[in-house]
Amino acid sequence: MEDPCFVYHRHIVRHAGLEPVPVPVDDGGMRIDILARSGADVALVTPAHQSPTGVVLAPERRTALVAWAEEHDAIVIEDDYDAEHRYDRDPVGALQGLAPERVVYGGTASKTLAPALRLGWLVVPQRMVESIRREKYLADQGTARIEQHAFADFIARGELDRHLRRMRSRYRARRDALVTALERELPEARVKGIAAGLHVTVELPPGHDEQAIKAAAHQASIRFSVLGDYDASGPPTLMLGYGALAEAAIGAGVRELARIVRET
Amino acid sequence: MEDPCFVYHRHIVRHAGLEPVPVPVDDGGMRIDILARSGADVALVTPAHQSPTGVVLAPERRTALVAWAEEHDAIVIEDDYDAEHRYDRDPVGALQGLAPERVVYGGTASKTLAPALRLGWLVVPQRMVESIRREKYLADQGTARIEQHAFADFIARGELDRHLRRMRSRYRARRDALVTALERELPEARVKGIAAGLHVTVELPPGHDEQAIKAAAHQASIRFSVLGDYDASGPPTLMLGYGALAEAAIGAGVRELARIVRET
Repeated sequence: MEDPCFVYHRHIVRHAGLEPVPVPVDDGGMRIDILARSGADVALVTPAHQSPTGVVLAPERRTALVAWAEEHDAIVIEDDYDAEHRYDRDPVGALQGLAPERVVYGGTASKTLAPALRLGWLVVPQRMVESIRREKYLADQGTARIEQHAFADFIARGELDRHLRRMRSRYRARRDALVTALERELPEARVKGIAAGLHVTVELPPGHDEQAIKAAAHQASIRFSVLGDYDASGPPTLMLGYGALAEAAIGAGVRELARIVRET
Repeated sequence: MEDPCFVYHRHIVRHAGLEPVPVPVDDGGMRIDILARSGADVALVTPAHQSPTGVVLAPERRTALVAWAEEHDAIVIEDDYDAEHRYDRDPVGALQGLAPERVVYGGTASKTLAPALRLGWLVVPQRMVESIRREKYLADQGTARIEQHAFADFIARGELDRHLRRMRSRYRARRDALVTALERELPEARVKGIAAGLHVTVELPPGHDEQAIKAAAHQASIRFSVLGDYDASGPPTLMLGYGALAEAAIGAGVRELARIVRET
């Protein structure tokens, strides 16, 4: 598993009786050289936009990850949770396309439409279809049908594409407003990760206490996660989500946040 | 587990790594005296309308089942899957009401509204709430919200009660038409179980081959399960569902079925 990783992933893996092996993430994503020495049987990755750091898996590492899976008869689980939201260039293709018989691909409507729909999908190697189908059947006899039909219709009529294009420019404007305000109000902070997704990763200079900042901000109704929430260690880092923010409110929010950072 | 039982239940139990212990069902439901000698830690029952036989758990056995759970520090899982559909008298109260700290109760909208909603609910002993909440969270992070809100509204406005009253008289008419047609066309068959649910259990005289009858009927677009589909042995028995039949079509369907039974 990526280190740091989406904490829910680790809980699921542990709960399934598996042993999570942390593999460090740097600016190029998971360190595949360290994965190769780890003895792991499966790699769970978020290559399009690493959760939580926001980096993208570098092209040579994508190739190396697939080669690792072939060599070790291993499986790659690709959580493509917000691949649709990339603002600076076209989205990266899925790993799944490189090695369909090695990659278990998961996508979701949670980031593009709403988590309340509980809609996601898997693309899995042919040999695993039947056993995964059976697991799903025994877990819940299948997902609610009305949403599935509505979502299929939404895609077929081209509405999802139109929605994504519309939201991409809105999210991009929110992200730009957030990054600009951070540069102005908190010049000592460093925005990390690529121009994608629905949050920015903001690294503060050493000495700041991210949990104290989070608690003080919460008092002022500014809510976010910090790196430590992902059981990860590193410089103090705030994860600022902008998916649900009004663009016009971002400047004042960051000004208030900057005051809190200085006073905490 | 009840023997015979709803086969899906047994698959889930086995898949969870538990060992199903079959306990015979007679006209009064599960034989609690045999359960008490079985060494089981948990009893999974369908007391309001046993699946598949359609019998109801007798009052003295309800008391005995709860006493068994208290004595053995055991859990009763009550699947109340179609308790709402009883035609001859008011529905029996749930076991859960007798022993809230011993019974894990499950209800569903699948029989009253539609299985496509995938809506159900649990009422569980206080000490189990947190661990069950966590299992659910790790399994799927929760159920689709739109249906939950719509269903809550449907209940709050009294629409579910109105729907149940309306459907109860329709289902009752369908059941009556089915039972009358069976008496006329297949007098040698015996209708078992109580006037409840959405299917009738029809026992044929010995010598009939239930699987051959099922296959021949399927050819004639008359589809049903038979006792053997529940991994149970006993006299040849057909499970005839009427939830989705038009009342007017029932007579002709039973006439055709009777011809198939005689010719197979």
